[in-house]
Amino acid sequence: MESQNKASLPVMDGFERKVTSLSDGPRTCDLLLRVLAFVLTLAAAIVLGVDKQTKVVPIKVVDTLPPISLPVSAKWHYLSAFTYSVASNAIACSYAALSLVLATSGKKGVMSSVIIFDLLMVAMLFSSNGAALAIGLMGYKGNSHVMWAKVCNVFGRFCNQVAVSIALSLLGSILFLLLVGMRLHKKSK
Amino acid sequence: MESQNKASLPVMDGFERKVTSLSDGPRTCDLLLRVLAFVLTLAAAIVLGVDKQTKVVPIKVVDTLPPISLPVSAKWHYLSAFTYSVASNAIACSYAALSLVLATSGKKGVMSSVIIFDLLMVAMLFSSNGAALAIGLMGYKGNSHVMWAKVCNVFGRFCNQVAVSIALSLLGSILFLLLVGMRLHKKSK
Repeated sequence: MESQNKASLPVMDGFERKVTSLSDGPRTCDLLLRVLAFVLTLAAAIVLGVDKQTKVVPIKVVDTLPPISLPVSAKWHYLSAFTYSVASNAIACSYAALSLVLATSGKKGVMSSVIIFDLLMVAMLFSSNGAALAIGLMGYKGNSHVMWAKVCNVFGRFCNQVAVSIALSLLGSILFLLLVGMRLHKKSK
Repeated sequence: MESQNKASLPVMDGFERKVTSLSDGPRTCDLLLRVLAFVLTLAAAIVLGVDKQTKVVPIKVVDTLPPISLPVSAKWHYLSAFTYSVASNAIACSYAALSLVLATSGKKGVMSSVIIFDLLMVAMLFSSNGAALAIGLMGYKGNSHVMWAKVCNVFGRFCNQVAVSIALSLLGSILFLLLVGMRLHKKSK
């Protein structure tokens, strides 16, 4: 009997290990997604937050006189959509760090609150991405109907940095979307 | 023994009824939210989709000549952010109608797919709201840094209709957010 128990121990041990590794898989994936979301939203906020370009542009002050060359700056906080994007990414990044700490505890009650905040991050980040992309595209292409001239032909580097920030923020928001999607998929099984 | 069984029947019947009504509560709420989301996104798409205003505006064609009065139209499809908003609300409205049909069946497998699409609607609607709001605000306030003049002082009715559409769309997207939030909350219990 004793020998039988001893013989079954390694089998049970292996089985337990397999069960643990299976339940650890989604948790590791969850933590990895949070780390990536933290890095991407932090990078998006920094890339747009330090975005600034100064150029000497010919400006017509009086119609009858020739244009005067003046230094003009493009800064992210001149446009409210970009301010919203920086603020959203900063909030999402701080939250991702906090949720990482909370998720490592793995308590069920805590995780149910965390996933609701993940959902709120999806809404906030996607709305800020939409706003930044709409204004960014307007700066890139302009619009003849409302007579808004494009500015990216002058402030090229500034616009490129905006595009990089939007791309990073979009990837970050997709990760939050995946976190919520994973939880919904897991629970519907 | 028979009398005992008979006596317990009304109690069991009452208990079953209570259980049924408790499980019917969230389902009715789910269906009600879908109906409301359908109505709101449909209204948002229609209000913006029929938005058009023509005004006679003095335009300077040649610098040395006085301005000429010309009829100028403001249409929703002149701005890509508004086109995106109409398309998003039309998709969300069609999906809400489809999900309403699928949700009435109440099959678990179907509902797990429906809730994933609800989440995608949240992302799509919030991004289109952000885009429409950013362009709408630009039209309302203008921006001196990029020299984009406000247009809502000329096309007041057009802008008001845009604002109503954004408000309706925002309410619709909050309902989709609630649908996903409810499912997450329900599953975490």
